[in-house]
Amino acid sequence: MAQQLTQAERDAALAKLPDWQVAEGRDAIRRTFVFNDFNQAFGFMARAALVAEKMDHHPDWSNVYKTVDVTLSTHDAGGLTERDIALAEAMDRIAEVG
Amino acid sequence: MAQQLTQAERDAALAKLPDWQVAEGRDAIRRTFVFNDFNQAFGFMARAALVAEKMDHHPDWSNVYKTVDVTLSTHDAGGLTERDIALAEAMDRIAEVG
Repeated sequence: MAQQLTQAERDAALAKLPDWQVAEGRDAIRRTFVFNDFNQAFGFMARAALVAEKMDHHPDWSNVYKTVDVTLSTHDAGGLTERDIALAEAMDRIAEVG
Repeated sequence: MAQQLTQAERDAALAKLPDWQVAEGRDAIRRTFVFNDFNQAFGFMARAALVAEKMDHHPDWSNVYKTVDVTLSTHDAGGLTERDIALAEAMDRIAEVG
């Protein structure tokens, strides 16, 4: 099972994820993705869903038209783990490709 | 442009949508769909997204693993319209088919 990140691991991981912020009130990270329209936003979600399902690690996320708000945390571990970092990196890559 | 529903129209529409509730603090309706797993939840979202895009009317929704929480309102009209009712009915049909 994934272990919670140490402070050093967390600092190193977040340095590689400049668009993500530590969520308020939860040991989690959060990013709001803004696309051009719903087609692009849901296209991102569809690609990210396939990656998440393959990783067996799923985001908490919401969508309003062209905006997708994502929160990542590892429920089993009670906080942030390397699985969240891996999914965040994958989502960043998907959003860049568009 | 879609007009806000009258009280009589609203009552008649909600009677046909027993699984939907009036959202708190907004002129909107809301339903929480619970599926068996993420595959089924996102499958529902993918089908609903295609319908929403075709209707050019989009949900506010969030997903956590097997749960999809949907809020429908017509931003342009400042409240509930027939377009929300149509999308709610379509989502109910999609969720039933599974």
